Amino acid sequence: MSITLGSTALPVFTTALTNLGHLLDKAQAHAEARKFSPDVFCAMRFAPDMLPFTAQIRIACDAAKNGSARLAGIEAPKFEDNETTFAELRERVSKTLAWLATLQPAQIDGREAAEITFPVGRDATRTLSGQAYLLHWAIPNIFFHVTTAYDLLRQAGVPLGKADYLAGPNAG
Amino acid sequence: MSITLGSTALPVFTTALTNLGHLLDKAQAHAEARKFSPDVFCAMRFAPDMLPFTAQIRIACDAAKNGSARLAGIEAPKFEDNETTFAELRERVSKTLAWLATLQPAQIDGREAAEITFPVGRDATRTLSGQAYLLHWAIPNIFFHVTTAYDLLRQAGVPLGKADYLAGPNAG
Repeated sequence: MSITLGSTALPVFTTALTNLGHLLDKAQAHAEARKFSPDVFCAMRFAPDMLPFTAQIRIACDAAKNGSARLAGIEAPKFEDNETTFAELRERVSKTLAWLATLQPAQIDGREAAEITFPVGRDATRTLSGQAYLLHWAIPNIFFHVTTAYDLLRQAGVPLGKADYLAGPNAG
Repeated sequence: MSITLGSTALPVFTTALTNLGHLLDKAQAHAEARKFSPDVFCAMRFAPDMLPFTAQIRIACDAAKNGSARLAGIEAPKFEDNETTFAELRERVSKTLAWLATLQPAQIDGREAAEITFPVGRDATRTLSGQAYLLHWAIPNIFFHVTTAYDLLRQAGVPLGKADYLAGPNAG
């Protein structure tokens, strides 16, 4: 069986977000054990002009949701960006995963050369082929935000290891 | 043109490391402008039990080098892991990129089902199909280490933006 665009995109997005959910579950368990609210994680950031933890989770979800929708040429569900608690962020990961599970690789397969136009920053757009969009935009983007969330949690003392990021609960 | 295993692996690895080199170049320019040695970046880490910046760069390079060699079923060149300066780390990125440039996608294409056995931690190995190894191990791994290097540099005050990570000097 040969690799296809859809059998690359969907499993990569799904595994990354499944593992992100696993990181959040471990962070919540850590907070409960130490008797502080996991909501204090939400505002953590590495620099004043970097986005906080909350945005890292939102954007990781949107990279998967909007990325797969654009690759499939369909409309993505719109989320409100109104999460204020850790539990709401965890729920966003779950609902993104539930939506990803409704997609089939066949909806994306063969769209390597499709023109994908997507927003870049607030006022600009960029157009890439489906293959370049997946490999050089959507995939690096989702791992950027999942890794930044991981790094923020590690710096905050949550006991995570590389296996939690790489393989999560599905590790063989 | 359909996506293939080699036309996924090599451009993803090459772009990630090209952008990593670009991040290092900006970090060096920042250090020079502020009149401190970029070598002070080398020991930065987010937690006492996380690997330092030096190791993030080494492992990002090795994820690309060893990952593509395993996918191609060939021997990777061995690097010494003896970098002690920022300039030596930058050189490691360059020599990894030079080696990646000698590979052709055709050496990897069609190896979706090839059994890839690779070290996990110090004493264990794991075996995955070529496709699973690329999508669920090598790619998440390289982006983990490039992003962690980015986050460390951002926290240290280096003026980087998402475009430096996503597109680097080749941004359209």
